[in-house]
Amino acid sequence: MKGAILGIAREVQLVDVTHDVAAHDVTEAALALEAAARYFPAGTIHVAVVDPGVGTERRGLVIEAAGYRFVGPDNGLFTPFFAGEWRAWELVEPAYRLADVSRTFHGRDVFGPAAAHLARGVAPSAFGPPVADPVELRWPTPSELDGGLLGEVVHIDRFGNLVTSIPASAIREEDGLSVRVAGEWLSLVRTYGDIPRGQAGALLGSRNRLEVAVREGSAARLLGAKRGTAVFVARGRRARTSSRPRRRRS
Amino acid sequence: MKGAILGIAREVQLVDVTHDVAAHDVTEAALALEAAARYFPAGTIHVAVVDPGVGTERRGLVIEAAGYRFVGPDNGLFTPFFAGEWRAWELVEPAYRLADVSRTFHGRDVFGPAAAHLARGVAPSAFGPPVADPVELRWPTPSELDGGLLGEVVHIDRFGNLVTSIPASAIREEDGLSVRVAGEWLSLVRTYGDIPRGQAGALLGSRNRLEVAVREGSAARLLGAKRGTAVFVARGRRARTSSRPRRRRS
Amino acid sequence: MKGAILGIAREVQLVDVTHDVAAHDVTEAALALEAAARYFPAGTIHVAVVDPGVGTERRGLVIEAAGYRFVGPDNGLFTPFFAGEWRAWELVEPAYRLADVSRTFHGRDVFGPAAAHLARGVAPSAFGPPVADPVELRWPTPSELDGGLLGEVVHIDRFGNLVTSIPASAIREEDGLSVRVAGEWLSLVRTYGDIPRGQAGALLGSRNRLEVAVREGSAARLLGAKRGTAVFVARGRRARTSSRPRRRRS
Repeated sequence: MKGAILGIAREVQLVDVTHDVAAHDVTEAALALEAAARYFPAGTIHVAVVDPGVGTERRGLVIEAAGYRFVGPDNGLFTPFFAGEWRAWELVEPAYRLADVSRTFHGRDVFGPAAAHLARGVAPSAFGPPVADPVELRWPTPSELDGGLLGEVVHIDRFGNLVTSIPASAIREEDGLSVRVAGEWLSLVRTYGDIPRGQAGALLGSRNRLEVAVREGSAARLLGAKRGTAVFVARGRRARTSSRPRRRRS
Repeated sequence: MKGAILGIAREVQLVDVTHDVAAHDVTEAALALEAAARYFPAGTIHVAVVDPGVGTERRGLVIEAAGYRFVGPDNGLFTPFFAGEWRAWELVEPAYRLADVSRTFHGRDVFGPAAAHLARGVAPSAFGPPVADPVELRWPTPSELDGGLLGEVVHIDRFGNLVTSIPASAIREEDGLSVRVAGEWLSLVRTYGDIPRGQAGALLGSRNRLEVAVREGSAARLLGAKRGTAVFVARGRRARTSSRPRRRRS
Repeated sequence: MKGAILGIAREVQLVDVTHDVAAHDVTEAALALEAAARYFPAGTIHVAVVDPGVGTERRGLVIEAAGYRFVGPDNGLFTPFFAGEWRAWELVEPAYRLADVSRTFHGRDVFGPAAAHLARGVAPSAFGPPVADPVELRWPTPSELDGGLLGEVVHIDRFGNLVTSIPASAIREEDGLSVRVAGEWLSLVRTYGDIPRGQAGALLGSRNRLEVAVREGSAARLLGAKRGTAVFVARGRRARTSSRPRRRRS
């Protein structure tokens, strides 16, 4: 894929963001893109390819949103960027693909080349007709429940931290919140180092979401949590377990 | 290794292709190089280092083939590029190595620096004498058998797809082929999305080889297949298992 | 983090060295930096972020040493570069951070931006006050014992080779040394290919340290060795096991 891009646009600067998204996991890829894209300079072209529908009738897209261009399959991967203003076009123009398009690797044959042509100045509208109805994922958002907020684990990072569907904007740290996950009440702390060793805590993470972490350990393993595990934020301190050692489950 | 290259040729553009080849697996590296190299622009210098013989008498090579230059150990890694026209030279000139050459990391001390000097315009013939007899791997090719083609699994990709020794050019999709692997008859389909969920199918993959895949799953795990597992292509449809669910073995 | 850098210094060349340091393992990161940094051109800015204390009172540093600049947390990560001449400054100037600094990802919010501003020509002293007492790790060095040298395994590389605390400069190959690790006496060899198949040997590795390796296999697994496993170098040949096959323990 990098070769195909450089074959068309020799002078671009390629930046690897991640190759660690789980196979076929479009939601995890969309969350990674949401977390990373906005730190790049305006005008950056973001190519994202998690593409279980490659070679079927699913469309390819180029999208303008948030000062960036995005290129990839129309399978919901770009859902976070449809919240604001956006425009999208279908990738159908054969001149902007490789001559031989395989049915199994459009990253190399379609999306990489499209990004390279964009980098060379081709207008998004030259790739094909406008698209008004791109696929959007059900985007995990928390709901009000019983005086609190009910969300879920949406991602487990490489440290085993649990990233949740609860946005930082829904949390007021001064409220003395408690967070319930996997049967435990946790206190809200400021950073990893504020969690006593061997215990779990909740904090506002670098993705602007509530996270659950274990200090220098894996919250996923300690708590037995997975993607989809419920996370409940209660107003007021209820944490009981943060001042005594927890049994490790691993 | 990247530092050693940039120390000699500050302006080159470094592109990582893969760091996921299994340790010491020269055949897997050669297959990866065959799959990727031809998508890069003409003139690209491909450095490949899977080098179990580092520090022994095995030679280092610079090769011109297919419009590219290749640099690495003479252990068969470049076998796919000896099919057409090629020229090779041994890397012996001390001026084009680091001052201290270790016995265990020639990627950093010999091959990276050689590539950097090539990038700066040094001629391949300046590195040492011509080589007429580079090491070549036994290259897996299928054989005609019983009205069909008998090949083998040569690579398992990160999705668990089985890449075979059977080239796309040996397959005519309109023939209604059936593919036998690990005791199952599979139908030839166009792309991953055409395989019923939980089942396996055969298709022409992005490496221009016959592949065996499971939709959003691992064919290696479902079929219990490994590198070297036999794959037989029969002319005519014999698939029995593609219309009913299969038991999962994992 | 790459986006944050490019947002400030669009023209820098980003080079990934490793993303495989174990989580929170500052010593392993310091060893990796010691091994790699000196191969880069003078003037290179090395950003290293293994940062279990992120968001606490631990300082951030910019360091000048060995012709390079280093940026990262003040937790001992740069210990190898305090052996020679160095100068350090604390990263406190808000103008050289992102506008919003999270408590959990200073690589993106503080260290990456600082490196980008350095690349644009900002003087190290502009980031904050000089630091005279940076954190230093206990650095593993061998000790003389019983006519030999007692060291330890400090790193296990991706091949399973054991990198030790014993520097190459402490070894004279002509002395006929024997190396004891995990209950086995090993001979000193020149390179991996000199080790009989299925056996272990000791050699001077590419990090200028004594290494223990198994030919095309994992010394860590074969010998059951870990970080901290003792390694003893005896003057004179005592190896008994190198000429007969060893039982594999895995």
